[in-house]
Parts: sequence; C-alpha cells; structure tokens
Amino acid sequence: MNSSLQSVGAIEAHHLHFSAPLRLTSGQSLSEYSLCYETYGRLNAARDNAVLICHALNASHHVAGFRANDPKDIGWWDNMVGPGKPVDTNRFFVIGVNNLGSCFGSTGPSSLDPATGKPYGSRFPVVTVEDWVEAQARLADALGIERFAAVMGGSLGGMQALQWAMAYPDRVDHAVVIASTPRLSAQNIAFNEVARRAITTDPEFYGGDYYAHQTVPRRGLAVARMVGHITYLSDDDMAQKFGRTLRGSDQYRYGFDVEFEIESYLRHQGEKFSTYFDANTYLLITRALDYFDPAKRCGGDLAAALAGVKSKFCLVSFTTDWRFPPERSREMVSALMQNKARLAYAEIDAPHGHDAFLMADPKYHGFVREYFEQIVTSPQARSAA
Amino acid sequence: MNSSLQSVGAIEAHHLHFSAPLRLTSGQSLSEYSLCYETYGRLNAARDNAVLICHALNASHHVAGFRANDPKDIGWWDNMVGPGKPVDTNRFFVIGVNNLGSCFGSTGPSSLDPATGKPYGSRFPVVTVEDWVEAQARLADALGIERFAAVMGGSLGGMQALQWAMAYPDRVDHAVVIASTPRLSAQNIAFNEVARRAITTDPEFYGGDYYAHQTVPRRGLAVARMVGHITYLSDDDMAQKFGRTLRGSDQYRYGFDVEFEIESYLRHQGEKFSTYFDANTYLLITRALDYFDPAKRCGGDLAAALAGVKSKFCLVSFTTDWRFPPERSREMVSALMQNKARLAYAEIDAPHGHDAFLMADPKYHGFVREYFEQIVTSPQARSAA
Repeated sequence: MNSSLQSVGAIEAHHLHFSAPLRLTSGQSLSEYSLCYETYGRLNAARDNAVLICHALNASHHVAGFRANDPKDIGWWDNMVGPGKPVDTNRFFVIGVNNLGSCFGSTGPSSLDPATGKPYGSRFPVVTVEDWVEAQARLADALGIERFAAVMGGSLGGMQALQWAMAYPDRVDHAVVIASTPRLSAQNIAFNEVARRAITTDPEFYGGDYYAHQTVPRRGLAVARMVGHITYLSDDDMAQKFGRTLRGSDQYRYGFDVEFEIESYLRHQGEKFSTYFDANTYLLITRALDYFDPAKRCGGDLAAALAGVKSKFCLVSFTTDWRFPPERSREMVSALMQNKARLAYAEIDAPHGHDAFLMADPKYHGFVREYFEQIVTSPQARSAA
Repeated sequence: MNSSLQSVGAIEAHHLHFSAPLRLTSGQSLSEYSLCYETYGRLNAARDNAVLICHALNASHHVAGFRANDPKDIGWWDNMVGPGKPVDTNRFFVIGVNNLGSCFGSTGPSSLDPATGKPYGSRFPVVTVEDWVEAQARLADALGIERFAAVMGGSLGGMQALQWAMAYPDRVDHAVVIASTPRLSAQNIAFNEVARRAITTDPEFYGGDYYAHQTVPRRGLAVARMVGHITYLSDDDMAQKFGRTLRGSDQYRYGFDVEFEIESYLRHQGEKFSTYFDANTYLLITRALDYFDPAKRCGGDLAAALAGVKSKFCLVSFTTDWRFPPERSREMVSALMQNKARLAYAEIDAPHGHDAFLMADPKYHGFVREYFEQIVTSPQARSAA
C-alpha cells in the first residue's frame, strides 16, 4: 500500500430537511423529507470540484472515513475515496448521500409519516432512480453546487450516475458508471422477485406494517440477502473461497445443519443483514432496480435516450460479473458512442464477480485514478464550504 | 414430428415392498420400504434389453406415457422414451423408478413410519445417490434383471447413472449421463441452501413435522422452487421468453404486485409446486445433490474414483447450462478417458439452459438415438416379464 493513501478520518453525518414536496415518478409525492449525507475534502472557491457518490442496494451515505463514535465503522468505498486515493479528497470535495427510502438516515419506510405520526410502512411510496437523482439535485442546490465535477457510482449507483447525465446534462462534467447496466434482465428481476417473495410471504411482514407489531420479517429478509449475495460473487470466486470445504470436519454428518462452509457463510450473511436492514427498504430498492430502463421511453433505443447527454463518461465492468456482465456496459458504451460522447471504458479481468467494484483491484483503481487525474478543476483553495 | 414416434400409452404404476432393511450411507437404516415404478416395452428372453431411467429433483417414476386415469398426466421424459423414440421401447424394456425419500409413491418422509404409525417427517433418514442406487439394484434383482443395457439420467439422474457404473461395474453395459456433474460447486450448494432455508425457516415447517399440524410450509417451498427454477433456465432464454415484458400493460404501475411477466411466471411456478411437492422431500433431494462427490473418497481424484468402471459411457452437456455447465461433463470425460473407458460425448448448442435435457432438441435427441441404436441386445421376443 502507498503510504500516502490515508483515511479521511472521523466523519460526522449531516441531515438536511426539505419541506417542499417531492413529486415522484409514480405520481405520488413525499410532502417533506430529510436526506442524510457526509462530505470529505473541501469545496474549492470556484465550486467546481464536487463529486457525488451514489450508493447501491445495501450501502449508505457513509462512503469514506470512520464514524467518530465507532472507529471500526469504515465507509463502504473507503478504498476509493480519500487523500491520495483514486478519488482524491486532496483535490475533490466528495459527497456521499443516503437515498430516499433507505434505513440509514434519510427518510424511508421506518420514518414517521408526518401525516399520521406513525412509521410509513406500506404507505411509503415507490421511489425510482429518477426520484433519487431529483432529491440529490435538491441537495446539490442546498449545498450551492451548480455543477458536479463527477457523479459516480457502482451497480445501482452507476444507474444514478447515468440518470444524472440524462436528467441534468449541464450539471455533470463526468459520469462514472461502474459495474452497472442500463436495465435489469429478466434473470436480474427474477432474483429480485425471489428476494421480495421471501420477505412479503414471511408472516411477520404484516403487509409492510410490521413496525406496529414490534417485529421484523427477519427470516424472509435473511433468505433475501442469501440469494442476493450469491449473485454478487462469481462462481469461480466462490469455488476458490469455499469450494466443498466442510465446516469443522472432513467427514459428512448427514443432516441439515451447516455441513459446508458456504452454507455457514451464507447463513451468517443473511442473519447479520436481517438485524440491521429494513425489509421495506429492501423491497423499495430492488423495485427501483427493476424499474430503471431509460431506453423504455424511446421504444427501447438507448442511444436515443442518451441523445441529450453532454457529460463525459468513465465506465468500468468486470469479466466475472454475472449480475451485470460486461455486455451491459458495452451496450452503454455503444449507445454513448452513437451520440459521439467522450468516454473511457475498461473491462477489468477480476475474479470477484459483481462485488469487484468494491475491491481495491490495482488495474481497476489505477484506471479510475487516471480518469480522475485528468478531470480539470480550479485550484484548491480555502472556501466557505 | 415423425409419425412413427408414439406414446407408450396408458401406464399403471407398480409398487414393490422390500422388507429387508436397507443400510444407508449415513449409517442409519430403513427397516422396510416400498419403491414405485413403471415399465415400458418388454423384457426380452435374454433379459439384456433393460434400461433404467433415474429421475432428477422433482420428477418421478412416471417417465413416459400417460396415466390411465388422467390422460393429461404425461411422463416427464415422454419425448425421449417410447416406440420409435431415442430410447425405443420397441427394442428396450424401460424402467422408471421413484427414489426413496420422494413424495410420489416410494417410501418418503410423508409415509407412515411402521415404528410409530405416524409420518416419518423429521425422522426420515438422509438418503444419498449411493442409497438410491442400492435400492434400485434391489428392484432390479426383484425384476430378474442381472445387467442393464443402460442406466440413464439427466442432472441428478445422471449422478445415479454414474454411481451405478461405479457401484455395479458388471451390471451396467452403458451409462448415459446427461447435463450432470461429478459434484456440486459451492454456488450450486449455495442455491440449494437458500432453498432449504426458505423452507426450514417457514413457521409452518415445525422442524419437519408439519404433517402432525395439518399444514405445509407452502410459502417457503414456493420461494425454494422459484430460486431453483431460475437456475434451470439460461439468462438468454429467460430474456427471450420474458425479457422486461410487463404483465397486462405497457406502463409501470409502481407497486409490488406482479409487474413483469417473469414475476408472474415465477410466482405461478412456485405456488403450483408448493401444492404438490413435499417440503421434506425437497430438503432430502437437495441434500443428496450436495453430498454426491465420488472423488472425495480418493482425495478429490475423480479418475481414481472411476478406476473400477467397466461400462461404456454416453455423456451430453448443453452450452447454456449454467447450473451444470459443459466443463463439469468434460471433467467426467477426462477422468473416464484416463481410465480408457469407451465413451461418446456431445456438447449441444441449445438455448434452454439446464432444462434443455428435458427438451426434444433434434441434435441432442439425434445423438442419444444414435447411441442407443448401437447398443447390442438380443432379439426381441416374447418373454415372461
């Protein structure tokens, strides 16, 4: 490791309340809401060095550094964002924001509905990638950021970066879209639906209003996480990490308790997840994934959907990612090239499947680092931010 | 379709009771048991034209023809087995047998335990591929079949054919192993474990003794089937059949009811399955899949495990099968070749994923047909069978 790679240090989250209603894609509205966010680095005087990081399914605004009251709680993309890191906080002012519908600080199904004084539960509206970008744009307004040097994300976060470039062509200098896709496949939707059925058929789900019953659909949520987790790892990686290794023995015990290491690992992942993640949020976020399909409004023509885009693009995919394989990124590359967009694209030969976007693979991080190094910003200087 | 391809017609199942205890791989025993089976064609005088068909996860002894009392209930491999079909019942005497632990007629967890007079439930022992083959061998003894012209199966059925060739090298002339594998991968086990967790964490599971509570873990079983079903289809096939087509509209409705066709299809598959399949059987069969690993007793060396094999082999894999991809079949081919076994192997370029083994792809069926045509048997003649 390069000794110049440092943590952004202890970080405190901020909350910003928005009292103007947010009209959603579905036609419904949120009358008011809060967004939770963190920032790293300093906004320069020209206000042209801001980078927005959008999160994926189970992440949050806590992108980098650690929480002051819990030094082990390190941000989910800490290897990417920090002083001397690919997204260098010595140069860039980085914002991590928690999306609407989440359970990590922004308004979501477990928040109190001001209309009733009770948790939203099943009454929380369906939110889309488009809605998230809209809410993020309002946050940018509030922070005085007219234009982002970059909007960046992996997986579902990459969809948000793409949506930013479409919705706000003049507010995004660079869109960084990693391990993402312009739309889910039938198989992707199928896995989401299995996860949702596991949750909604759990008797403790109570139609989404389990808060009132002082319970959570823990079992369904654990199964949902297990099936999701399989799709994040590559077959090879799983074979290498777990193979057919038995747990605590080299002999079969012939039963249904944990026998193989992979079973133990998955059960643990599922159970841990079910203790901290909100089931309604899982439903909302998987549904936002399902719905995202910008080409739909242009009869399936992604190039047409991207016609108004002015941002420059950085795209990355990973060879062993079978959730959003390289073909999906190539589809975006092709549609962007038809629009003569400036872009850089790398297919990284990494063994870790979809999860590779979270790992510090040198080729991957080197590519992102070089991309950010050529982003032009005004000199860093003391600012009021 | 060739007009000479006919059904074997109306078929009745037979039951055979075995009162000698069956010692199982686990060390446990079944004190007595019944096997349910069907036969098609006629055993010849030399008794050398018998073909045993082994079934996979959710199938049964009902391989071909239709049930006399339900003409729509057609055997699961009716396109493969019948007069003029690849496994030609004008030449071969074909046996379909339901495995121990099943819920379709042979002794299983829902059968009455003679020791208690109540369903076995959680007390039904874990059964393995080896145990199934042992039980099938006893059935062959009872039917007076010393040696099979062929033992054949797809997927888990292929494991049984392989096991037959290892356990009874002198009783199997040809082993036909289709869309199978010599062992599950970590990812395969992972999917099985998700399915099992969905079942065993369903509150209606009652530790496997739901029969006593007049209920079934229907919800868990449906989720289990949904996740299994995804692994049977190829990504491409799912994209082609369902894509992102919406159910009953071309507009999003922004909710959690069925929105996409693929959701409707999967839910329907899951719900239908949960009405007729026994949850304990699902657990047992997925566990038998997990455990099968003949190379384990030879330190992982499959060629060594196959050293005693004398059968000739026919192997088939399908290019889009991501459950048991062609590499797994090639591994068996390689291990057999190291033992100088005679074999024929085809990789069929078919779009239907793992389920391709159940379909009447002309290249696939042509290959199997040619293979069976060169199997030498004594002339067909009237026999006592």
